[in-house]
Amino acid sequence: MSREAYYQRIAPQHMAPLWTRLKSLVPKEPTPVGVAHRWAYSELRPYVLEAAEHISAEEAERRVLILENPALVGSSQITQTLYAGLQLIMPGEVAPAHRHTQSALRFIVEGSGAYTAVDGEKTLMAPGDFVITPSWTWHHHGHDASGPMVWLDGLDIPITHFFGSTFREDHRDEEAAVTRPTGDALARYGSGLLPVGWRSGSLNSPVFNYPYARTREALHALTKAGAPDAHLGHLMRYVNPADGGWAMPTMATMIRLVPRAFATQPYRSSDSAVFVGVEGTGELRVGEQGFAITPHDIVVVPGWMAYTIHADSDLVLFSYSDRVAQEKLGFWREQRQ
Amino acid sequence: MSREAYYQRIAPQHMAPLWTRLKSLVPKEPTPVGVAHRWAYSELRPYVLEAAEHISAEEAERRVLILENPALVGSSQITQTLYAGLQLIMPGEVAPAHRHTQSALRFIVEGSGAYTAVDGEKTLMAPGDFVITPSWTWHHHGHDASGPMVWLDGLDIPITHFFGSTFREDHRDEEAAVTRPTGDALARYGSGLLPVGWRSGSLNSPVFNYPYARTREALHALTKAGAPDAHLGHLMRYVNPADGGWAMPTMATMIRLVPRAFATQPYRSSDSAVFVGVEGTGELRVGEQGFAITPHDIVVVPGWMAYTIHADSDLVLFSYSDRVAQEKLGFWREQRQ
Amino acid sequence: MSREAYYQRIAPQHMAPLWTRLKSLVPKEPTPVGVAHRWAYSELRPYVLEAAEHISAEEAERRVLILENPALVGSSQITQTLYAGLQLIMPGEVAPAHRHTQSALRFIVEGSGAYTAVDGEKTLMAPGDFVITPSWTWHHHGHDASGPMVWLDGLDIPITHFFGSTFREDHRDEEAAVTRPTGDALARYGSGLLPVGWRSGSLNSPVFNYPYARTREALHALTKAGAPDAHLGHLMRYVNPADGGWAMPTMATMIRLVPRAFATQPYRSSDSAVFVGVEGTGELRVGEQGFAITPHDIVVVPGWMAYTIHADSDLVLFSYSDRVAQEKLGFWREQRQ
Amino acid sequence: MSREAYYQRIAPQHMAPLWTRLKSLVPKEPTPVGVAHRWAYSELRPYVLEAAEHISAEEAERRVLILENPALVGSSQITQTLYAGLQLIMPGEVAPAHRHTQSALRFIVEGSGAYTAVDGEKTLMAPGDFVITPSWTWHHHGHDASGPMVWLDGLDIPITHFFGSTFREDHRDEEAAVTRPTGDALARYGSGLLPVGWRSGSLNSPVFNYPYARTREALHALTKAGAPDAHLGHLMRYVNPADGGWAMPTMATMIRLVPRAFATQPYRSSDSAVFVGVEGTGELRVGEQGFAITPHDIVVVPGWMAYTIHADSDLVLFSYSDRVAQEKLGFWREQRQ
Repeated sequence: MSREAYYQRIAPQHMAPLWTRLKSLVPKEPTPVGVAHRWAYSELRPYVLEAAEHISAEEAERRVLILENPALVGSSQITQTLYAGLQLIMPGEVAPAHRHTQSALRFIVEGSGAYTAVDGEKTLMAPGDFVITPSWTWHHHGHDASGPMVWLDGLDIPITHFFGSTFREDHRDEEAAVTRPTGDALARYGSGLLPVGWRSGSLNSPVFNYPYARTREALHALTKAGAPDAHLGHLMRYVNPADGGWAMPTMATMIRLVPRAFATQPYRSSDSAVFVGVEGTGELRVGEQGFAITPHDIVVVPGWMAYTIHADSDLVLFSYSDRVAQEKLGFWREQRQ
Repeated sequence: MSREAYYQRIAPQHMAPLWTRLKSLVPKEPTPVGVAHRWAYSELRPYVLEAAEHISAEEAERRVLILENPALVGSSQITQTLYAGLQLIMPGEVAPAHRHTQSALRFIVEGSGAYTAVDGEKTLMAPGDFVITPSWTWHHHGHDASGPMVWLDGLDIPITHFFGSTFREDHRDEEAAVTRPTGDALARYGSGLLPVGWRSGSLNSPVFNYPYARTREALHALTKAGAPDAHLGHLMRYVNPADGGWAMPTMATMIRLVPRAFATQPYRSSDSAVFVGVEGTGELRVGEQGFAITPHDIVVVPGWMAYTIHADSDLVLFSYSDRVAQEKLGFWREQRQ
Repeated sequence: MSREAYYQRIAPQHMAPLWTRLKSLVPKEPTPVGVAHRWAYSELRPYVLEAAEHISAEEAERRVLILENPALVGSSQITQTLYAGLQLIMPGEVAPAHRHTQSALRFIVEGSGAYTAVDGEKTLMAPGDFVITPSWTWHHHGHDASGPMVWLDGLDIPITHFFGSTFREDHRDEEAAVTRPTGDALARYGSGLLPVGWRSGSLNSPVFNYPYARTREALHALTKAGAPDAHLGHLMRYVNPADGGWAMPTMATMIRLVPRAFATQPYRSSDSAVFVGVEGTGELRVGEQGFAITPHDIVVVPGWMAYTIHADSDLVLFSYSDRVAQEKLGFWREQRQ
Repeated sequence: MSREAYYQRIAPQHMAPLWTRLKSLVPKEPTPVGVAHRWAYSELRPYVLEAAEHISAEEAERRVLILENPALVGSSQITQTLYAGLQLIMPGEVAPAHRHTQSALRFIVEGSGAYTAVDGEKTLMAPGDFVITPSWTWHHHGHDASGPMVWLDGLDIPITHFFGSTFREDHRDEEAAVTRPTGDALARYGSGLLPVGWRSGSLNSPVFNYPYARTREALHALTKAGAPDAHLGHLMRYVNPADGGWAMPTMATMIRLVPRAFATQPYRSSDSAVFVGVEGTGELRVGEQGFAITPHDIVVVPGWMAYTIHADSDLVLFSYSDRVAQEKLGFWREQRQ
């Protein structure tokens, strides 16, 4: 009897032969999903600001333009595992309170005076700040000052979707109650101290705003201590003070400084990543493609694609990836070339 | 200007409005992927044994019939995140050595005398044994005794695929070298002792065979200590002795005893799970569907679907799920109804 | 003005110069406290049994002969940090229930049929078993069978005394209630499984009897896997299944097999230790002193004194020390010579 | 035969009856060792400065006046487990490089411009700074500016002595090499970031200067967030960013603010503690004794003695104790009265 006939006989039993699929199910090396791409902020910015003409923050719930990987149209994904978008809030607006199992990061791009309220505390946002909205915490955004305010949203939407643990709840009020003074979390958890007896009840950092002023000062100090890593530059990760781990449980968040005229060696790792220009200019090369980077530009690099970074001036890059999830699950690999 | 026109203008920039997709991207509750289903071993068994007539273990590399979720045809998935298959090895055969980033569990269904060799040690397999092949360890299977040997393979193939960290390497020889005596890992790591100074270099348990004889004795002891949990029965998890965590980093492995005539209350959790009958008979109900369970039957329950278990006789069920991954990432939820 | 006059003027202020004491307060190397010594069980045994003629277990609360370091007379210490004693219980007796912050280990020397009841569960004790009484758990001992029963008690009395956290409470009844069947803890926590959702509320292992039968089988398996460590022999530690750490928070408990005719190389570590012969014969040499070891003999070795072990026949030695406390505090050192 | 005769017969065997000692060895409650005491800095200061007339920093190795508990004369102990002293360094002096297993903390009392060099980095010290010298790291102190500089030294000398792991090594040079720029550790480990891939090789915090400016700002923020704890005030602990634990492995270091006119409720814990006034005035009451506190005053409170704190003005108190050691060993207890 032929194999094909056998396969057809077992199909109604919801069985299939592994041996015809083994090599594709368990391949020798990963094939990147999605492509590398750059969004030049100067090109995007007019469209982002124009969004305010089309919809209010209240109506939109979140007025965000999704950055979608050119090879994954319709997926709302910047990589197979990550979501990215640019959020705009205008003076006087409120993006109403809700909570969800998805974790969100905000990396502030431009403007000042807007706040995000997380778990009862408002934090003011300034360019370069890294802000966390932990899973299942009430949050809303507002803007009491002047001028447009734009930030990058990074979420683990594809990961929660993959695992099927997607819950959302809308707050009965537009704004959740503010019960703690601004700056409380940073004082309480992010100043080299922790309250005696406090234990974290979350996998996210209790510090939810890492101000750029302090981050920038730390990066500057590193440049005085010695040569940057040949493949990574001066690369730091945001940290959860409760345990010294990554600041968020699903998305690794990092910031690096590549000194002027330095060029990194080719490097790849199994995590897909999103880069954001913060200061300085340079180029990120992925394979044959070179992407110029100026402040606020966004570049996506799929996992296991080698890249180099060249700095024209001291170049500061924020990045986020699924590395922390891969590390916890035992999947993360890197290769220095 | 109409919104639609705006959407069309931003599309070439690889941008899309979040507000038209928000409710589906961040839904109120998860929608199960795949359906609940039972594979009756008595029906499958003839097809499994027949596989030996169609292909050898050597040619197949692994002679396995995939159990595919009826709602996910062609996906090689039993749930959105898990793979399951029944592997057959015949006397004298060898399934050749390879390694891969995917972690594998074996739950032994029938037969005796076959072995799996993991990381230099052969372990003999007997029905009810739970055997681990950790990520990236050389392994092959062989059978020096008589009669067919069948076990359930559970792998995290969809999870590694999702994260894009899929690596495989074939061993240059059919069999990897055996360098440690049989039983060494269980003596060294699974007897209430650990070698002084030893540190685990893996996220997987160093014990790679949890013999059913010991497991069964423990389950029996629990029945003497008091009433089972109303929703779970007497539910135990296999443990990594290096840290007290789950035995594997991506798949939670559990075994339970539901005493004769006991019926559990409705329970659901966000992890999708695969159940295997070990001893006794009963019924697993998922929503309106009731699945009779006899030894070796396999039932899949998608995440967030409530189920109950009723035992006609003392019912022992093995199960595996993605709960450990969900816990690490902050996604896991349960609900007792 | 002379320094001496200055010292006298500051003394009433409860101040003293560091510089006259620095070298002794912060010495170059530790000076062992106490001496090495052997207690031959054949010599002790008649005295231990005679104790039953002088006092009952009830009157004594615990009928124990303290093994006191010859250089620390009156201290009740076998080393500066550890206590040791031999406890006797006769058929029909009960050593009444109490609890204390001190943790206790029992290593069973001879007899059968006596039990210790810890936290609501009675465990029967057999020679070679390692039994734990965690800090602040109710416990009593009893003997329902025949013949005298003797075990070694090891406690952290000097450590609790040093830190000043010494609390004791006597139970209102002679026997605390037994609420769990014998064997429950071993089934529940010591069989490669743990109850799903269980979290330890203690720094001690939830397994409180490590039966010698299983331990001995593991040691035997190790002898087949390769050569013993040149300095340690086949050395294993008892493990807390909740976290993979030492079984007890203040006392490290270990068991080793030195194969027949094997002699270890000189080794020292900063922890003071107590050795107990279990099986076989040999010699433990400390500096110039050689101590013959036969079953049940007890040898104390102060910290940082080098020793070797020579086995005439397969020699099994139990030992306990303050190594776990030293490791947690950052003090532990070893030197292989 | 009388019991006494029996005791005499077993004494040569180095055995003693437990039952005559049990109640004192395992007491119902701890008896504090040492007494509560206050050192008024205004009284001590002239003696501290006078030390410079009697000996140089080089000759003294460390020019320190030990603060000795009035009930433990000759012990060099401020409590049974802790050491304290006031160290003076004058302009142009160097306290030569050495290292030891003892861990040291410095809490800066007065002066400016002196530095401590730890593990290749010099840190300048200012009043209120908390500085760590981890176990076994090379360190020396120097003073390149003007005026006397005084700080409190806290060490775990009694603990290392008790465990017998006391090692010291003098550096061949007066000053160990400085290889990293000032501020490097704080930038690298204490700014909410950690270097990617870095793993701590120590139980001590990699941050070795916690500047008072940042600490004070955090304390101030806490006063805005709500009422202080009724027994503790606003109590914070210095944290190791590598794991979120205490900054040092043997000594718990804390700082608190008690708001003006606030009085804490009676509280005791099993750890003995040393308090140092930083800002403001108030009173610390231990039992019947009341100790006025002004800046730089030092008060010792033995373990398990209840105390209250009353603040006349916003009162900032630094304290250190053996709590972290007690927690790790399972001994720590507290009682709110």
